[in-house]
Amino acid sequence: MTQEAEGAGLSEEQYRRKMQRRQEVQQQRIAERNVEKGLVIINTGNGKGKTTAALGMVMRSLGHSYRVAIVQFIKGAWEPAEKAVLERFGDQLTFQAMGEGFTWDTQDRDRDTQTAQTAWETALSYIRNPLYKTILLDEINIALKHGFLSVDQVVAGLAEKPEMTHVILTGRGAPQALIDQADLVTEMTLVKHPFREQGIKAQPGIEY
Amino acid sequence: MTQEAEGAGLSEEQYRRKMQRRQEVQQQRIAERNVEKGLVIINTGNGKGKTTAALGMVMRSLGHSYRVAIVQFIKGAWEPAEKAVLERFGDQLTFQAMGEGFTWDTQDRDRDTQTAQTAWETALSYIRNPLYKTILLDEINIALKHGFLSVDQVVAGLAEKPEMTHVILTGRGAPQALIDQADLVTEMTLVKHPFREQGIKAQPGIEY
Repeated sequence: MTQEAEGAGLSEEQYRRKMQRRQEVQQQRIAERNVEKGLVIINTGNGKGKTTAALGMVMRSLGHSYRVAIVQFIKGAWEPAEKAVLERFGDQLTFQAMGEGFTWDTQDRDRDTQTAQTAWETALSYIRNPLYKTILLDEINIALKHGFLSVDQVVAGLAEKPEMTHVILTGRGAPQALIDQADLVTEMTLVKHPFREQGIKAQPGIEY
Repeated sequence: MTQEAEGAGLSEEQYRRKMQRRQEVQQQRIAERNVEKGLVIINTGNGKGKTTAALGMVMRSLGHSYRVAIVQFIKGAWEPAEKAVLERFGDQLTFQAMGEGFTWDTQDRDRDTQTAQTAWETALSYIRNPLYKTILLDEINIALKHGFLSVDQVVAGLAEKPEMTHVILTGRGAPQALIDQADLVTEMTLVKHPFREQGIKAQPGIEY
């Protein structure tokens, strides 16, 4: 391990000054940021953590006593452990698992398209409803990638959201038009993955 | 929007076959992966979602009724909304906010080092205790970056974990020795950020 620690070689006084400058920069940044608005958030990329990070945001919203809606576009349902956690929040959380499983299980394009369109109509009803403060459209990018939904449809739907509503969209391969519309876009990149490299199966408590 | 949907131009029969092939590949992959073990997981990179994705994993673990410990290395404490959610799990979750705030608030290297070392001793006691199935060392990479902890110390500590325990380490700038030791490493990359570009402040329910 050759990496040098950041503060190495600084005297106590130099360290104090360095940290003081950082504190000032940080305080100024916070002061400059005063806009409050609902965000369009995209978690994309080929790595892990897209849905997981969205789940973390859902938890934060629930912690603020916001009403939250989740629409699951592709997977048949979230796993029992996730549901067990989400069920603790009762009516505060609306969960719609519209997908009938991964598309490679149905093998029927018309049915897949219909399922995704129905999920989108449901999502749109939540997006328009200002009672919902945070809406998670999980794996919607996959539905877009397969052409079950059109990008124009989703762009137009997001434009209808009330100003203070947050909408989170997940899935690899987010289309550019969605990225253009979003406020916060994060790409999750796989650096190392135990499934592929070590033959390790999905672990409860981590993957589901 | 010029991106072509993946299934476009395929006949129904071609679509069905394509999806069938995918299903087969997927089933084979799952069959090949049969190792169960606790994972060392790193969420790093300059983007958002490192702690948030870890929080999602913590929620999954809690949903499986696992005991979970969180040690917060740098920030003074998690925000009230996160705590409100975590408190619902009572004794199932142990939360140690050892940091005394960002380092640029204390400006005293000895105190910062002492705080981080105390946090690490606590973390180590959880890592060694097989009752804890998932342990989150939040922002530990920042403590490493500032030299408050040594990488060797952490590498040696992780080697002591019981086989089935998951340990999640977050923070930008994960050192290479930790990446080498980890099973699952994800880099969160910032594609677009509302704070920087639009002057939008941190939004409740999303950032905290």
